[in-house]
Amino acid sequence: MKKSEFSFIGDIAKLFGALPHNGFEPIGDDCTVLPMGEEALVMTTDMLIEDIHFLRGASSAEEVGEKSLMVNISDVAAMGAKPVATLLSIALPESAQGEWAEAFMRGYYEASAREGVALVGGDTTASRDKIAINVVAIGRAPMANIKRRSDAKVGDAICVTGKLGISSKGLVDIMFGDLNTVAAKAHRRAQARTAEGVWLGARNDVHAMMDISDGIASDINHIMELSKVGARVELNSIPTDYDIRYATTGGEDYELLLTVAPESIESVAKALYEATGTSLTKIGEITDTGYVEWLEGGKPTELELKGFTHF
Amino acid sequence: MKKSEFSFIGDIAKLFGALPHNGFEPIGDDCTVLPMGEEALVMTTDMLIEDIHFLRGASSAEEVGEKSLMVNISDVAAMGAKPVATLLSIALPESAQGEWAEAFMRGYYEASAREGVALVGGDTTASRDKIAINVVAIGRAPMANIKRRSDAKVGDAICVTGKLGISSKGLVDIMFGDLNTVAAKAHRRAQARTAEGVWLGARNDVHAMMDISDGIASDINHIMELSKVGARVELNSIPTDYDIRYATTGGEDYELLLTVAPESIESVAKALYEATGTSLTKIGEITDTGYVEWLEGGKPTELELKGFTHF
Repeated sequence: MKKSEFSFIGDIAKLFGALPHNGFEPIGDDCTVLPMGEEALVMTTDMLIEDIHFLRGASSAEEVGEKSLMVNISDVAAMGAKPVATLLSIALPESAQGEWAEAFMRGYYEASAREGVALVGGDTTASRDKIAINVVAIGRAPMANIKRRSDAKVGDAICVTGKLGISSKGLVDIMFGDLNTVAAKAHRRAQARTAEGVWLGARNDVHAMMDISDGIASDINHIMELSKVGARVELNSIPTDYDIRYATTGGEDYELLLTVAPESIESVAKALYEATGTSLTKIGEITDTGYVEWLEGGKPTELELKGFTHF
Repeated sequence: MKKSEFSFIGDIAKLFGALPHNGFEPIGDDCTVLPMGEEALVMTTDMLIEDIHFLRGASSAEEVGEKSLMVNISDVAAMGAKPVATLLSIALPESAQGEWAEAFMRGYYEASAREGVALVGGDTTASRDKIAINVVAIGRAPMANIKRRSDAKVGDAICVTGKLGISSKGLVDIMFGDLNTVAAKAHRRAQARTAEGVWLGARNDVHAMMDISDGIASDINHIMELSKVGARVELNSIPTDYDIRYATTGGEDYELLLTVAPESIESVAKALYEATGTSLTKIGEITDTGYVEWLEGGKPTELELKGFTHF
């Protein structure tokens, strides 16, 4: 989308900010939060459009089905909540009715079954040429477990789960016609950190959390803005098997970005690994500067701060 | 969509039926229902695709915005629940970014403000040529107020709010190029029976309820199937200012179709009118036959049972 997307979203938020919230917390996180007594319901929605978010020639229908679910589940897990259900809307041109639609549903179903997520509603309709998919994911958590972007504290360790960069490396592979690399497959499928998000949600020493959808160089800003803090990140600490640009400005890794009380980082990392098999790596600290400092081997460096753009 | 839409939906429901429901009631109503103690949350989603559900040349952007909200709010109200919030996803081709998008949001906002509904999340993205819109509406109600399609009882009076047929008459007007008739405007805008749905939800003598989106000739089947009953409908009783075909097989009126304990029909109609200014008309009875009988002046008649098809 054009640059105007962001001012458009800003305008919408401003316009609707004046209306009653009816119990929902203000917009700003991966999901909207509806407190209901001791429990919270979280909800998120994502739209995937053919030729913007996926190409029929480059992704199989099963992969699109799986990824449609996963990107939404990821937002729920990033709040510390357990994904419980989805609603799926799908608009299908004639060329995608039949085989494509069935394979899409197979991918969506298999991922839903693996994640223990119900399909509780939806809509199917025709479209003229392009496929449009909208998924809503719903999660539940004890209210005390909900992790927000606004909860980072000065001195917190900034951490990421797993390794970064594989998805954007995969996208570049696909653009060069290498559809079958490990990275290309990772890009087309996506895997949400569901168990990790729920586990981290239950820890009091985990403060802010979100998923990495646009790349940390862009996503860290959301935590800084909403927590009113700064950040210092050591590039050499970022866990990746690829070029550092993929790991910082590339998107769609769906790993978790979180801040942890500094005295707890080792115990949280150890216990998370034991519980889920997933690593947690400290890549920097939250500061009080209001801006982000990038270090390379301890020395200040510049990072080309381009956000991740869908092809 | 092709005939296969229905078998596709059936296949999906069967496929996912085996998964855990995670507290949600089974699919079948206007909304999915999530019981949370004494209270229920209801949710519904609808996708609107350019050139399938609306034409940019025939509807203003404001009207599309308003209608996108209203058709979803209508499903919430039809469950007896109060609409509290929506999530909005919108995919915009370059030609609709800027002016069209702003006018759409204005229409969506004004309808949201009038209905007291918050916007709590969403997604905006680009698309190649056509506009795609997905709305999720969320409602709340005391669990005891939730009205289902499965609750009709033999002997119940079958009733409708307001008058039927104006929307499909308006669609025909639009197809003939008469964009400015009263009916054409009603078709492009839609008005959900929100206050009426909430009011009827609180009545124990109101049993099954749904909104009329495909025309009563088609919608009555949902109540019959889920309640395992039959129906007898008197065509002369159907409140309409138009040809009876519009009022029976035309869709998108968004009036409420409900069944009422026979002894209560007069008191419910009177009290509803006093509370909301909206009429309630008895058009038939629930029977035990398992099929629908159409009467005209008390005599059996045939109705051409074509469902409503979007242009």
